[in-house]
Amino acid sequence: MLQSGAMDYRDSGVDIAAADLAKGRIKTLVRETFNASVLSEIGSFGALFRPDFARYREPVLVASTDGVGTKIQVAIAAGVHDTVGHDLVAHCVNDILVQGATPLFFLDYIALGVMDPRRVEAIVSGFARGCAEFACPLIGGETAEMPGAYAPGDYDLAGFIVGVVDRPRLLPRNVREGDLLVGLASDGLHTNGYSLARKVLFDTLGHGVDTLLPELGTTVGQALLAPHRGYLSALEPLLESGKIHALSHVTGGGFPGNVPRALPKGLAARIRTSAWKVPPLFHVIQKGGRVSDAEMYRTFNMGVGMVVVVDPADLHDVEHSLERRGEACFVIGAVEPGSGVIFE
Amino acid sequence: MLQSGAMDYRDSGVDIAAADLAKGRIKTLVRETFNASVLSEIGSFGALFRPDFARYREPVLVASTDGVGTKIQVAIAAGVHDTVGHDLVAHCVNDILVQGATPLFFLDYIALGVMDPRRVEAIVSGFARGCAEFACPLIGGETAEMPGAYAPGDYDLAGFIVGVVDRPRLLPRNVREGDLLVGLASDGLHTNGYSLARKVLFDTLGHGVDTLLPELGTTVGQALLAPHRGYLSALEPLLESGKIHALSHVTGGGFPGNVPRALPKGLAARIRTSAWKVPPLFHVIQKGGRVSDAEMYRTFNMGVGMVVVVDPADLHDVEHSLERRGEACFVIGAVEPGSGVIFE
Repeated sequence: MLQSGAMDYRDSGVDIAAADLAKGRIKTLVRETFNASVLSEIGSFGALFRPDFARYREPVLVASTDGVGTKIQVAIAAGVHDTVGHDLVAHCVNDILVQGATPLFFLDYIALGVMDPRRVEAIVSGFARGCAEFACPLIGGETAEMPGAYAPGDYDLAGFIVGVVDRPRLLPRNVREGDLLVGLASDGLHTNGYSLARKVLFDTLGHGVDTLLPELGTTVGQALLAPHRGYLSALEPLLESGKIHALSHVTGGGFPGNVPRALPKGLAARIRTSAWKVPPLFHVIQKGGRVSDAEMYRTFNMGVGMVVVVDPADLHDVEHSLERRGEACFVIGAVEPGSGVIFE
Repeated sequence: MLQSGAMDYRDSGVDIAAADLAKGRIKTLVRETFNASVLSEIGSFGALFRPDFARYREPVLVASTDGVGTKIQVAIAAGVHDTVGHDLVAHCVNDILVQGATPLFFLDYIALGVMDPRRVEAIVSGFARGCAEFACPLIGGETAEMPGAYAPGDYDLAGFIVGVVDRPRLLPRNVREGDLLVGLASDGLHTNGYSLARKVLFDTLGHGVDTLLPELGTTVGQALLAPHRGYLSALEPLLESGKIHALSHVTGGGFPGNVPRALPKGLAARIRTSAWKVPPLFHVIQKGGRVSDAEMYRTFNMGVGMVVVVDPADLHDVEHSLERRGEACFVIGAVEPGSGVIFE
């Protein structure tokens, strides 16, 4: 029995009953993402997944982990907590897609200053929605209440994905001089460049999340919280066709930080920045912060979330396939001898 | 070119060059954990792992994620950053071990207020040391600089593990009335109960990390940072022998939160708390915070990091096997009809 004046775990800021309540609410959301490969119940120590590798000649697991960066600070400022989980799933799905892999399962890590069951439910609903969209069971996770480590309203998220690719279909492969770079449209900043964007929009320009920007037709918060696009459904049929030589997910490091990683040594990406219309949000940030072009293209996606490297002979088929799935795409450059990214 | 007065990503608090430097230092540490299944180089988008499931009849992947809780706040206060990664690997290894699984690979997530290459190197060295100890390649990770989200000296960690178990060997299995509970000694608090421990030791008792506690013969910081024991090498031979019916990793929620999860419905764990000597650190906390017994046993491991459920007929063999590997173990109770944990 607790004695009067005695201390228990709740006094120290950790509310286990509230944590249990949150767990109950998220069970239903999470279970909807399950498929026949998921063997475990929610709440077991480790999540069990029985892979079906029958159709693979040589299955290779592809794993990746990521956070949403300081996009989370925008979510906190706007009081919108059910989208960042979706962002993180999309980000992770794209990260393994560039190696030709499709998702097997996802796990989430949520650390909060205070266990708020409704907050956790909102966050997990975002994860579950993302996992449902990409047919990627949310098989496990950890929700940690860390008073002191995080301010009461603060939290952080990490996501972890495991996918599979048949080794002969691993990307990149067969990238050659003369290949074309096809850009797929992004929706806003996705999950990169938020530290700079927040500094310019909030500190330099003095905007708040509720400030309406006429150039955008939305509030700053709405623009910054636009969901990270996942390109799985658009690209999966093309992966199966073998017509993709490489993919580059334009995330942290922008074009120079990501496109060269998809190219073999000795080849460069020539990118014609006039080939697509940079969305207005990037102009607002560039003008407001007097940011150089070079810095913009190495920080933001500038309207291109994924770059697809294809043989010119396949361009028509690839464009047709993407457009049939509603993807806006544009040839933004080509592969040539050299290294890194050459902008023109 | 950057203009005078223009803003770049470094101004916003994110130092990409420092991040690159940290990445270089980490590579060597991480590569040493690799084995023949790791196909990818460090720095690729997703990590590639070719599983060798030839000896499994029906391989089941077991995945888990965790953090180190507010143990990290002790590490920060003590300026010791190369142990928490090891803690996290050990924690994750134990979490999948309770289902009978051995590790395939691990990924880490590190989020910091400021990218400090030496700090990151220390953190990753802990992950790498843990991964090397458990023969679990550290195949990927994310290091995120999040100014604003974390205070400059603060950081958080999450770990993700994937292991494998042959489905017929999944634990728990065959747990019966009359089975014995064998406790394996812990080293300190492992990674649970730190919010309460810090509250008592630092706030109530006014200690600092450098306070020498005569009862312990160490400083408070040393006692609290004792590494989380991983029980893989001690238990792996027993898993193969089939003599383990179930395992319970005594983590958050203590005995009531973990031991019943290893038992089928209708069975309870009777635990004789006098069966082992509770280490002095727990007495210091209990006395200092006037914490009830019930609260202690549902918050801390109380000196027992793992509970092994065995048939009484196998007890001698199990004890012998554990002792040969240097594990201190003691029979702490038995399985009986009922539910939950019954302390006596």
